Amino acid sequence: MPKKLMLTSLGILAIAVVLTAPGCMPAIRTDRDTVYQTSTISALMKGVFDGDMTLGELRPYGDFGLGTFQALDGEMLELDGKFYRANLDGSIMEVPDHTYTPFAVVTFFDNDMVVDLEQPTDLSQLQLHIDGKLVSPNYFYAVKVKGKFSSMKTRSVPVQVKPYPTLTDAVKNQQVTELHDVEGTMIGFRCPPYVDGVNVPGYHFHFIDSARKTGGHVLDCVASGVRVTIDGTPSFVLGLQDTKGFQRVNLGAGQPEGLQQVEQGK
Amino acid sequence: MPKKLMLTSLGILAIAVVLTAPGCMPAIRTDRDTVYQTSTISALMKGVFDGDMTLGELRPYGDFGLGTFQALDGEMLELDGKFYRANLDGSIMEVPDHTYTPFAVVTFFDNDMVVDLEQPTDLSQLQLHIDGKLVSPNYFYAVKVKGKFSSMKTRSVPVQVKPYPTLTDAVKNQQVTELHDVEGTMIGFRCPPYVDGVNVPGYHFHFIDSARKTGGHVLDCVASGVRVTIDGTPSFVLGLQDTKGFQRVNLGAGQPEGLQQVEQGK
Repeated sequence: MPKKLMLTSLGILAIAVVLTAPGCMPAIRTDRDTVYQTSTISALMKGVFDGDMTLGELRPYGDFGLGTFQALDGEMLELDGKFYRANLDGSIMEVPDHTYTPFAVVTFFDNDMVVDLEQPTDLSQLQLHIDGKLVSPNYFYAVKVKGKFSSMKTRSVPVQVKPYPTLTDAVKNQQVTELHDVEGTMIGFRCPPYVDGVNVPGYHFHFIDSARKTGGHVLDCVASGVRVTIDGTPSFVLGLQDTKGFQRVNLGAGQPEGLQQVEQGK
Repeated sequence: MPKKLMLTSLGILAIAVVLTAPGCMPAIRTDRDTVYQTSTISALMKGVFDGDMTLGELRPYGDFGLGTFQALDGEMLELDGKFYRANLDGSIMEVPDHTYTPFAVVTFFDNDMVVDLEQPTDLSQLQLHIDGKLVSPNYFYAVKVKGKFSSMKTRSVPVQVKPYPTLTDAVKNQQVTELHDVEGTMIGFRCPPYVDGVNVPGYHFHFIDSARKTGGHVLDCVASGVRVTIDGTPSFVLGLQDTKGFQRVNLGAGQPEGLQQVEQGK
């Protein structure tokens, strides 16, 4: 293990420079078909809400993704290489590169497959429809759903103070925003079943409207004319935090208790 | 997803060349502090015994590791960049680079920490002792245990024919080799608890004697004068197979049934 992960605000290039010195291998560099993740869902569930990676350091790994911010300060989205925060009230703001994240998942989005859905489709129907198009449920997929939504129910979470609660407790104070007849983009991933504890098996979507003014973590929706684009990825890179919070947290085996409740707002 | 993973017998450089064409990111390149894995333990448990990666393609990701071979043809070890097979009878042979693996885990081994153990220590005591030295149970660690063993109980597995059985069924025909007063090296990893389904949480060791003639998957041992070196790694890269076997297998959530039985030979 390196003495210090050397992830500075200079970004990932700093690592490359350090580690390509004579006798060293190059640092991790991902291709476009890789999902990169900082920290684990099990650590986030247990209240590891401080990270050691900035958005600027995350960007070399992808232009599309989701996550959260230091101290669980809102829902994070990345679209076209720009990072956005969905605040507690559902408003969207662009976020500067020096902002830290305790959990995020990104990739470079490629249109491997396009599916147009014209009929009204709720979230579970949408997911079943996408499932039917996949070559296998055992890969990671980035999923973009762009178009019209007759309803969109999102949530965001309030910033937390130390000592941090569990994510389950933090989400009890979530605020729900309901939109009708809105245009925008759902940014999501479908993870394979064996990632329990690392990430969320199945689908996980965040939403941002086309004006980039409103959004959050998707609890439910009705799509009423959308284009679904799917990017399958055969590689997954997990970068673990070099923080006391991550090192000291007791991470049990398997799917963290309460994950479904947190993800689905139930 | 690439149309084809392009992992040819030319090795990983083939990918780098293809993907560093204008407009593309470089392929995945790992630094020394990364554990690289091909496929998942859940797929191996379900009988995905054919892989699409050769040992030659695996070597750029590490000089130290373990796994198995196409058709589950013995236990695989990598030490100092050389790949070995522990045959069913416990004999060791070096394996050519064009050999395929359906599951393997490798890293570049660095001596982050050294612990000398002079007293007789069985496998569970050894693991507890190492646990006590780790900065955190939440990282991946490569572990090398080199020295004298008053006893060493290993197993290997017979080559399987299609249609492949589950790993649990295949291991029922394992052959156990018991050695006494042997010198050699245990090659292993300690994985964090949240990798259920991806890899084996906790310790997993293979053994090779100092003459590189005998070895296998470690079921039990008594170390009687060993040097333990530990390499902590904050990054993990998962490369998924581009095979029909992997795509079609039904991978359930959480720790695969029977994993403990398979790993501990119980």
